[in-house]
Amino acid sequence: MKQVAIVGVGLIGGSIGACLRENRLCERVVGVGRNLERLRLARKAGLIDAVETDLPKAVAGSELAVVCTPVETIARFSITALESANSCVVTDAGSTKQTIVEQICQQLSSQPERLKRFIGSHPIAGSEQSGFEAARRDLFKDRLVIMTPTQETAAASTDLAKRFWESLGAQTVLQSPADHDRTLASISHLPHLIASALAASTPPEHLPFASVGWGDTTRVASGDVELWRQIVRQNRQPLADALRGFQAAVQEIMTAIESGDDQTLVRILQQGKTNRDSLGN
Amino acid sequence: MKQVAIVGVGLIGGSIGACLRENRLCERVVGVGRNLERLRLARKAGLIDAVETDLPKAVAGSELAVVCTPVETIARFSITALESANSCVVTDAGSTKQTIVEQICQQLSSQPERLKRFIGSHPIAGSEQSGFEAARRDLFKDRLVIMTPTQETAAASTDLAKRFWESLGAQTVLQSPADHDRTLASISHLPHLIASALAASTPPEHLPFASVGWGDTTRVASGDVELWRQIVRQNRQPLADALRGFQAAVQEIMTAIESGDDQTLVRILQQGKTNRDSLGN
Repeated sequence: MKQVAIVGVGLIGGSIGACLRENRLCERVVGVGRNLERLRLARKAGLIDAVETDLPKAVAGSELAVVCTPVETIARFSITALESANSCVVTDAGSTKQTIVEQICQQLSSQPERLKRFIGSHPIAGSEQSGFEAARRDLFKDRLVIMTPTQETAAASTDLAKRFWESLGAQTVLQSPADHDRTLASISHLPHLIASALAASTPPEHLPFASVGWGDTTRVASGDVELWRQIVRQNRQPLADALRGFQAAVQEIMTAIESGDDQTLVRILQQGKTNRDSLGN
Repeated sequence: MKQVAIVGVGLIGGSIGACLRENRLCERVVGVGRNLERLRLARKAGLIDAVETDLPKAVAGSELAVVCTPVETIARFSITALESANSCVVTDAGSTKQTIVEQICQQLSSQPERLKRFIGSHPIAGSEQSGFEAARRDLFKDRLVIMTPTQETAAASTDLAKRFWESLGAQTVLQSPADHDRTLASISHLPHLIASALAASTPPEHLPFASVGWGDTTRVASGDVELWRQIVRQNRQPLADALRGFQAAVQEIMTAIESGDDQTLVRILQQGKTNRDSLGN
């Protein structure tokens, strides 16, 4: 590819840029954003080649645009990108898919030619940090990217995005937007809320005693509050379902503790260990 | 000190031995256990100087005995140790204190001279691993050790144990056994049960998508099931109280999600982030 536009140069966008540049996967990486000063710092940090505040202009010269902004703005920027060029494939990196894909499909329902070039993506990578300062060129290495083509998506767009993510070292898998959101509720959004609930409900007088275990279990609660508010807001139903399953397990433990039912306790501890051990370190 | 006896040479006992030997903090470290073969392997790994299956014999020649077995056997071994010698100070490394201290004080209530030499301890250090193979000589560096002297404990015993833990690089703090158990319920035992509940309730079809966030949040669920059954069993009431506080926070999040109450959601996310950030990385 000659040019890739990264819309939103934060942890994810910056890491994409770093990897593209490091491995010379395209001739030019254009970082798109509102804050010219931040964009220039990202360029200075070696994450992008060029800076641009005008999205249509950046997209016009690109074969691929990757929208890496907070989830509530992804649909809007993707639509602008699709409307600004006639050949640029547009994808994103949002942690939710159903709402975003629906918004784009609805607003462009009368322009199926433009919808052919949109393919939703979500690289399952990141950290509790945010901002391009935390970007890492190996962020996507051996990670999974879930791609969510719709009936409108052209096979060529899916192929291009697939090759793009794989060039960053990731593996790709296709799911429906709804399946993606259920999966992510379970393995990412629910853990985040649990970590937040645990960290928030720990009595202040006990915090000075917190050690490695509490620190691991609550690590993701350090994540950016506004980014996570948007994610939770966009994935309400699957997240409520996942929360209910978790609450049932907690209640089972509570009942086992109160009634001295070691058998149930051991069964849950063992199932948890088996599932956790299957992931490795 | 001339000789320290370590009763139970696993992760904790092995790490104590490694640190004592590395820094030449005593002339001889005796590892006490039932399994001679495992003890010999621990000696070969450089964690102890000598092996002994006869607890009274090991204690008789020691100034300090540290009982590092699973919590349900700590009281029994501590009592044997206290009865086997007339000058050896006995402490432990158990994650619970109230039950252990009560059992020892009750059984030795007619021998207050022996009780003077017992001082409960809990180094807040460890990992999801177990066994002496995971021992590390820096396990206690900059960690907190909660010590729980009773009215029966001699000041000289507390002093000796305090100097012992500090020589391993730890800081010490005194609490009542009941306060210790409430603190640990909140910062260690509750996180463990939450991690287990999350790992156990994650649908199997979603596990292949689990990434860093799920992995961090569930890490401690890999811990030894039997060790944790015993800890939970010994700390039922404080743990049930901590669980209720956590359940309330989860229910508040659930209600906020279902009613679209972003204000409450943001308040909890922000409180969780503030508490987590206060710990550092």
